[in-house]
Amino acid sequence: MTTVLLLYDIPHDGTRAKVADACLDYGLARVQYSAFLGELNHNRQQEILLRLRRIIGQRPARIQLVPVCEKDLRLMKEVVTDDYRVDR
Amino acid sequence: MTTVLLLYDIPHDGTRAKVADACLDYGLARVQYSAFLGELNHNRQQEILLRLRRIIGQRPARIQLVPVCEKDLRLMKEVVTDDYRVDR
Repeated sequence: MTTVLLLYDIPHDGTRAKVADACLDYGLARVQYSAFLGELNHNRQQEILLRLRRIIGQRPARIQLVPVCEKDLRLMKEVVTDDYRVDR
Repeated sequence: MTTVLLLYDIPHDGTRAKVADACLDYGLARVQYSAFLGELNHNRQQEILLRLRRIIGQRPARIQLVPVCEKDLRLMKEVVTDDYRVDR
């Protein structure tokens, strides 16, 4: 299994919502409004990208799936303020 | 030097714009509307986070800075459609 960060930039609201739902279906956890983190092996990475490709069709979108090794995961830094809510 | 992915989720427009400007000042390249990629050594990583912390103040925000090793960078996958524009 590999930890991956999946982030996307999709202006169309409905498309973005469907992409978020697909990420949840694949067991990824929402870390930002448009970014998810979780475990996906190589096959599941290919599978989710195929599914997301179908969802976005020709609409403007950029989706990036970045494997994050354990070392990099440990070195990840973040700033979160008290009022931040991912599920707004 | 370390390649880092810096992504943020900031609802307030003006704050988000200032954070984007700071990322550009640090030489990062915009890969998504709210995600930048570039080279930052450990000191510069601390420095930019301090600066971003000042910019966001108490407003809702989550900023994540993820080091991405060369191997993971090579394994990064993406989907981009023809009509996607990062600078919209």
